[in-house]
Amino acid sequence: MSETLILHEYAASGNCYKVRLTAALLGLELGRREYDIMAGETRSTGFLAEVNANGRTPVLQVGEQFVPESNAACFYIADGSWLIPEGRFERADMLRWMFWEQYNHEPNVATLRFWHGWIGEANWSDLQRAQFPAKKAAGEAALALMDEHLGRQDWLVADGLTLADVALYAYTHVAEGGGFRLADYPAVQDWLTRVEGVPDYVAMAA
Amino acid sequence: MSETLILHEYAASGNCYKVRLTAALLGLELGRREYDIMAGETRSTGFLAEVNANGRTPVLQVGEQFVPESNAACFYIADGSWLIPEGRFERADMLRWMFWEQYNHEPNVATLRFWHGWIGEANWSDLQRAQFPAKKAAGEAALALMDEHLGRQDWLVADGLTLADVALYAYTHVAEGGGFRLADYPAVQDWLTRVEGVPDYVAMAA
Repeated sequence: MSETLILHEYAASGNCYKVRLTAALLGLELGRREYDIMAGETRSTGFLAEVNANGRTPVLQVGEQFVPESNAACFYIADGSWLIPEGRFERADMLRWMFWEQYNHEPNVATLRFWHGWIGEANWSDLQRAQFPAKKAAGEAALALMDEHLGRQDWLVADGLTLADVALYAYTHVAEGGGFRLADYPAVQDWLTRVEGVPDYVAMAA
Repeated sequence: MSETLILHEYAASGNCYKVRLTAALLGLELGRREYDIMAGETRSTGFLAEVNANGRTPVLQVGEQFVPESNAACFYIADGSWLIPEGRFERADMLRWMFWEQYNHEPNVATLRFWHGWIGEANWSDLQRAQFPAKKAAGEAALALMDEHLGRQDWLVADGLTLADVALYAYTHVAEGGGFRLADYPAVQDWLTRVEGVPDYVAMAA
């Protein structure tokens, strides 16, 4: 890749970690620029105008262009690499898990991690308290669906690691921070160990 | 495409319509199998075991294989066609809008359409009533972000229609059913008209 890549990020976010893990697995260097999301740094006028009008990280900067949305940034980095299957069905199946991650997994598993670990239950709004049971149940359902699938095969798509595993690893491996018990999902636990054994794997805190 | 394609769907769903519109734009035939989601037909044991463990439509059947998630099904159909840009940045930018659609647009614009048009406000649960203001505001923010972007360019990505436009057209053009006023978003209205003028466009009810 000839262009300089810079990740605009909040490093403790699983969505940002996905992008770093993708780059690490491919041996690519990423510049990193950290934002304090709790201080509203991604809602500043400059960030909204220049980096992402949606006010969120991660955003991958490619030269003078920007790719918001974690899974799109991962796809940009991995395009043409072994992390994206060559088969037409397998490529769509990989995207299927990545869209499912953003719709069924992240808004529950990642959101409850944020509510527990960053906001604190004592500070939850009435709306957060009202939403909690449904988000907990939907998070458990997402983990159960993964567990059932990973009980039948080693990787989410076909027979090797793809971006789908990277995308879902990010928040699944820290799901306990959202009040989920990974011991309830043994096939998921085995898969987490498999991901961590892939060459050039890097941890979230790296 | 040599395999038979069958869309497992609920035709009034924008997510299902996306897949039909993609196929129509490419001149491809889709078999269609309708499910009554209000009667729980996508939660049946058979559907969960054979079609989609996540209990949702659309699911694109390709021979004996299944692609759940609307935007992954669109990608499968359009893979290698003019609906997906050849440039690496533009391809990722297209996916960026499609992930954004599922995270920021559909859970607000489409969900409120469903709540208004299928459940009926008189029947909303306490949780739905509590969530309504945030979903309305997030839906308006999503439409405003599109309007600002489409005020600067004719199509979401680069200079022509892509799957990103198909994905976002689906629920945007029926947003009034969710209580949103399209007249508040004139650049979006102009873009809706442009999409409707593309050769082989088909309407949702077709």
